[in-house]
Amino acid sequence: MTTSFETVAPLLAQQAIELPSWAFGNSGTRFRVFGSPGTARDPYEKIADAAKVHELTGLAPTVALHIPWDVVDDFGQLREYANGLGVELGTVNSNTFQDDDYKLGSVTHSDPVIRQKAIDHHLRCIDIMHQTGSRDLKIWLADGTNYPGQDDIRARQDRLADSLQQIYAGLGDDQRLVLEYKFFEPAFYHTDVPDWGTSYAHTVALGDKALVCLDTGHHAPGTNIEFIVAQLLRLGKLGSFDFNSRFYADDDLIVGAADPFQLFRILAEVIRGGGFGPDSGVAFMLDQCHNIEQKIPGQMRSVLNVQEMTARALLIDRDALSAAQAAGDVLGAHGILMDAFYRDVRPDLAAWRESRGLPADPMAAYAASGHQEKIAAERVGGAQASWGA
Amino acid sequence: MTTSFETVAPLLAQQAIELPSWAFGNSGTRFRVFGSPGTARDPYEKIADAAKVHELTGLAPTVALHIPWDVVDDFGQLREYANGLGVELGTVNSNTFQDDDYKLGSVTHSDPVIRQKAIDHHLRCIDIMHQTGSRDLKIWLADGTNYPGQDDIRARQDRLADSLQQIYAGLGDDQRLVLEYKFFEPAFYHTDVPDWGTSYAHTVALGDKALVCLDTGHHAPGTNIEFIVAQLLRLGKLGSFDFNSRFYADDDLIVGAADPFQLFRILAEVIRGGGFGPDSGVAFMLDQCHNIEQKIPGQMRSVLNVQEMTARALLIDRDALSAAQAAGDVLGAHGILMDAFYRDVRPDLAAWRESRGLPADPMAAYAASGHQEKIAAERVGGAQASWGA
Amino acid sequence: MTTSFETVAPLLAQQAIELPSWAFGNSGTRFRVFGSPGTARDPYEKIADAAKVHELTGLAPTVALHIPWDVVDDFGQLREYANGLGVELGTVNSNTFQDDDYKLGSVTHSDPVIRQKAIDHHLRCIDIMHQTGSRDLKIWLADGTNYPGQDDIRARQDRLADSLQQIYAGLGDDQRLVLEYKFFEPAFYHTDVPDWGTSYAHTVALGDKALVCLDTGHHAPGTNIEFIVAQLLRLGKLGSFDFNSRFYADDDLIVGAADPFQLFRILAEVIRGGGFGPDSGVAFMLDQCHNIEQKIPGQMRSVLNVQEMTARALLIDRDALSAAQAAGDVLGAHGILMDAFYRDVRPDLAAWRESRGLPADPMAAYAASGHQEKIAAERVGGAQASWGA
Amino acid sequence: MTTSFETVAPLLAQQAIELPSWAFGNSGTRFRVFGSPGTARDPYEKIADAAKVHELTGLAPTVALHIPWDVVDDFGQLREYANGLGVELGTVNSNTFQDDDYKLGSVTHSDPVIRQKAIDHHLRCIDIMHQTGSRDLKIWLADGTNYPGQDDIRARQDRLADSLQQIYAGLGDDQRLVLEYKFFEPAFYHTDVPDWGTSYAHTVALGDKALVCLDTGHHAPGTNIEFIVAQLLRLGKLGSFDFNSRFYADDDLIVGAADPFQLFRILAEVIRGGGFGPDSGVAFMLDQCHNIEQKIPGQMRSVLNVQEMTARALLIDRDALSAAQAAGDVLGAHGILMDAFYRDVRPDLAAWRESRGLPADPMAAYAASGHQEKIAAERVGGAQASWGA
Repeated sequence: MTTSFETVAPLLAQQAIELPSWAFGNSGTRFRVFGSPGTARDPYEKIADAAKVHELTGLAPTVALHIPWDVVDDFGQLREYANGLGVELGTVNSNTFQDDDYKLGSVTHSDPVIRQKAIDHHLRCIDIMHQTGSRDLKIWLADGTNYPGQDDIRARQDRLADSLQQIYAGLGDDQRLVLEYKFFEPAFYHTDVPDWGTSYAHTVALGDKALVCLDTGHHAPGTNIEFIVAQLLRLGKLGSFDFNSRFYADDDLIVGAADPFQLFRILAEVIRGGGFGPDSGVAFMLDQCHNIEQKIPGQMRSVLNVQEMTARALLIDRDALSAAQAAGDVLGAHGILMDAFYRDVRPDLAAWRESRGLPADPMAAYAASGHQEKIAAERVGGAQASWGA
Repeated sequence: MTTSFETVAPLLAQQAIELPSWAFGNSGTRFRVFGSPGTARDPYEKIADAAKVHELTGLAPTVALHIPWDVVDDFGQLREYANGLGVELGTVNSNTFQDDDYKLGSVTHSDPVIRQKAIDHHLRCIDIMHQTGSRDLKIWLADGTNYPGQDDIRARQDRLADSLQQIYAGLGDDQRLVLEYKFFEPAFYHTDVPDWGTSYAHTVALGDKALVCLDTGHHAPGTNIEFIVAQLLRLGKLGSFDFNSRFYADDDLIVGAADPFQLFRILAEVIRGGGFGPDSGVAFMLDQCHNIEQKIPGQMRSVLNVQEMTARALLIDRDALSAAQAAGDVLGAHGILMDAFYRDVRPDLAAWRESRGLPADPMAAYAASGHQEKIAAERVGGAQASWGA
Repeated sequence: MTTSFETVAPLLAQQAIELPSWAFGNSGTRFRVFGSPGTARDPYEKIADAAKVHELTGLAPTVALHIPWDVVDDFGQLREYANGLGVELGTVNSNTFQDDDYKLGSVTHSDPVIRQKAIDHHLRCIDIMHQTGSRDLKIWLADGTNYPGQDDIRARQDRLADSLQQIYAGLGDDQRLVLEYKFFEPAFYHTDVPDWGTSYAHTVALGDKALVCLDTGHHAPGTNIEFIVAQLLRLGKLGSFDFNSRFYADDDLIVGAADPFQLFRILAEVIRGGGFGPDSGVAFMLDQCHNIEQKIPGQMRSVLNVQEMTARALLIDRDALSAAQAAGDVLGAHGILMDAFYRDVRPDLAAWRESRGLPADPMAAYAASGHQEKIAAERVGGAQASWGA
Repeated sequence: MTTSFETVAPLLAQQAIELPSWAFGNSGTRFRVFGSPGTARDPYEKIADAAKVHELTGLAPTVALHIPWDVVDDFGQLREYANGLGVELGTVNSNTFQDDDYKLGSVTHSDPVIRQKAIDHHLRCIDIMHQTGSRDLKIWLADGTNYPGQDDIRARQDRLADSLQQIYAGLGDDQRLVLEYKFFEPAFYHTDVPDWGTSYAHTVALGDKALVCLDTGHHAPGTNIEFIVAQLLRLGKLGSFDFNSRFYADDDLIVGAADPFQLFRILAEVIRGGGFGPDSGVAFMLDQCHNIEQKIPGQMRSVLNVQEMTARALLIDRDALSAAQAAGDVLGAHGILMDAFYRDVRPDLAAWRESRGLPADPMAAYAASGHQEKIAAERVGGAQASWGA
């Protein structure tokens, strides 16, 4: 009933998923950040780890940076290093949530000095983008308040709009700003960009180079995320995804691990709305934490999950689906969707990988390669990278 | 520390809260609609009940209609009847969720015949608005789907946009369209207007006479509603409120009964953002169900709750609050807000009511009046009004 | 990596899923109950519909009754009718939520007369169970309150305990009482049996013949249902399931339609904990509403979903899983579970069905049979069954 | 309509709220722990801070310890130090979530060596309790898993039961074990004690000295916490509260800051069920984080909030409430409850405080005292205490 795999294979060849450098450093919860053998200690080692994921999966040709976590003396050199390993530097993520000055806000702060500092940090990120060849500046803000009355929600919006305008003005012609929203955390009463509507309203006000970033873990319980995907594509404002999964809050688990059917529905709407492929302007990125599992295989599992589910979503028999929908055949239309979801695409994908010189089972290939043991033995001494460095 | 009651009393005199005619008919859950003695049997009796609420509270000068529930042969006559009782007819609510044709959608339906029928119903509502002198057409849609794949989410948005455009074109110069959003129910997989962002995007596309209606019970768990209030006021698109309260889903309980502090915060943002008073263009309405409690006192309790909480919100010492916020005094600023919330305004309001010829305690006055017993005795026979009639 | 299908086929042959008679009547939301051609008009027609589901799937040998909805003059005759169609009468569900007396409660009511009436209704249900040969009395209570203060939560618990004791005392030696819990709805502030802990505490107090009924749609957002399954099996108190699925509240959608992976995890814990098969004492039932889709195929899709997911859960390679768990191999253990989930069992199940004289594709067989058109043509006139009758 | 303040004043004199030592160290989110001037650097300074809260409020005579965070060489000396400042050492909290060995579990771990280490840590805590004169051992476990399949949920329960049994066996005659439950975090798929039912089942199995600890921030969205209070009191198993408040997850904000009406309802059920006062056996504790606000005034605000809301709950006119409930007067009964909630008890409490030699406004007294500036000046150098030390 579904489309054949052969039909969709060329589309899969277009898929690229950006890896976050910070996924290769340690992460954890407020209770504890556990270390693990072999963890990268600097941006170079993070990039090497990301390149290993790409080598084995063919899915992850770019690596996102987090500034200042990934600051190096010479970004040109870092870029060459990445290229030498077969990957490119990608999105630059600004960090305005770990400096003491930002305790009560950054680009929304009522103190003009602190606000300017936060704006300047973004301008510095744009400078780095010129050196790294990055297209996108991703802005996620920890700004918000913990207590009702703590600050003036409305005034913060106005300051936010002004700050974004100044940052936007600094963008190069081929650069974009993607504004991420988040329901809560680390702020516990209100966040200054809590939902897609807020991000949308601001990016519309900014202009065509401003778009929305949708992180799949940043919504209220029960939110229909694929609807937001469809809506943002319709409005021409979906810039990028931060993929991950969650059972409760922003758990940052491996994408597809918590609700694979939701991932399928999201990808089905991406494809339906023209958001798939390099020409769509929609970037696929991961934003995850591997608190207790190994990091390189954690990232591999993630990109493979996205690929497998993309294959299933591409296999939907769109003609039959449209016909059943038009006929008001509720169970029939639902059944056509489910047919694609339940198709086991793994054997086809394994064969396809081999045809492209990749290992049929990248997870097994990594385990057999001894690479994890190698980096565990080599990376001794120094400070393992984490969110704080 | 808070402002004096005398200062805010003149502002309270401006407050008007619209009552929904359907609150005076029976309502219930999918499990059962219980009847109760004295329930109104037709639009005239509903208006009489609403007028009684206004008589005792001075807070509810208008009554919203639901079409076709409140269809009468002569709306001019209904209007005169209302005027004779001291109230006006208000917002007209369109109903496109109870006709068999709308089982799978109304203004979003893929069948052009059914979609036109739904559009025409709204045009008829506009006709009625001319007769009743109503300003606002409120559109709440039950449209949505129950199963993934059942229909094409994106195509439904496009049809929605087109339908709204046709309805908008029919508005008179002084009429407005307010588009309500709802998270879920009666649709259980997706709704076509699930969140403020969707309502906002559509009303922006429509034009200045289209605004958003915020129903306080129509959000995902944990949503910060006062943020949405602040944002919509900032964007100039907050048209009206449907007040009620809820612990779980769209419970439609008495406003202020479930989370009085949330109501306070909402009203504080309304006032902060210029949304209070007749010139603001923001309409206060109730949308509630009195499934097990008496309906007239249920509505009285509701408008009194809004009034009491408005008084508290007006009492916030704005100068002190701004100073504490600017100083980054988290606990101090929060404390100033809480000071106003914890102020017991009831004695002041009782005195103020008496000074205006109203009963000091409207609830007690109603109970003592014998009115409930009177209508229970009189309204025998006929069919009690409910959501189905 | 997973177990072979042949190994698990004999276990699948033990699977039985009880159908609710009310699924074949009309249902809906508080906004509207839509009718549909061919809907059953009395208990006999409901049982005929259920038998059709069993005929085509081999999965549904029993039908649950709802009292008083399914009251007939002669239950012996109804039983013979069912047997003649190849099915048995199953669980008896008591209904104490539609009589005016129960507006504020039934077995928890403070008025001893109403409380006794509710107890007596359950004793009558036990009488019917003797006539129908039913083992289980399922008690789901709509009891609760809508407003804080409305009633005394604690006193209601004490009355509940006493009422249950009286009902329990009426059970025959081979009969059981299963007590269902529900988070909210139709009560909106508190329900008297809101969670598994409450149901557990009461059934422990009652004795060995009292067990917990777990309805998969009756939990707070985010609740880990499979944990509750594991816990209740460990405590020896899991009596039965009411299967359905939901995105938001108690949506009563087709089981497996909203979160198939959750259904898989639930069934994996059922099997892990010894809850699968006729000797386990755990009854599988559906409790769903087909508001907009056809009812017979809706039930067929449901039992097939449970079967397919049971097959996947049985295919988990338990030895490999245990080994990976013991080794602390987080990704490895997770991967073994996912391997079983992603296996497409449908071809194997189709072949297995054919080997047992069942249609390979029951959904297609039903559509091709013309049965839906036949009942639509025959069942004209009379009142379609619904929750109210 | 409500009871007079004079009637309840003697009951307020019985109120004692235990402070957590860790509230005086730094805390934060996974994104950042901000420091602040004057933060305590060791257990002695934490106790001094707690004693300051008690000095100004008269509400906080005991301080809870967290082991190993608060390990000192000589607990007898620490106890004397506390007594010298007018407070006692209270509950001992075990910490088994920060040692590398506990990455995948502590008392539930499949490795018997690690499990024994976790059990031994609790036995050590009991030893400390003998030295500090503490009654309660509070066990909150971070145990759980992040990925489906990662470990065997059922086997973990069995190991949990066994570990708890060993710990329980070590309790002295006058000591108690209180078992806290938590919905999620830091584990993101399942936690081993997620809900009150689980904690209840384990404490029943252990015996009379084992009770449940209810942390007000550890529930799923929408959970009716006061129902759990009523139920646990009815079952004789409510041992203690961890008070705090939250809008989203376990935000650990100041109690009463997010939903004051919920705090009122909780306290009303505590009083209703016999859980108030020193003879009840129910301990009131705070468990909060002051991430961005000052810590001493943060704790003061918290105990004052509990006191103010307790006063309101005590003021409920129980006779009138019972009469309205018995009459089925929904609005009347609700109104009686709300009357007490809306009463502004602050002037009465200020006068009462003064009559007891306490400052009328403890918050203002602290601000005027210069104490914050004093400790900020004195506590220079050394490492500020935080969750990690």
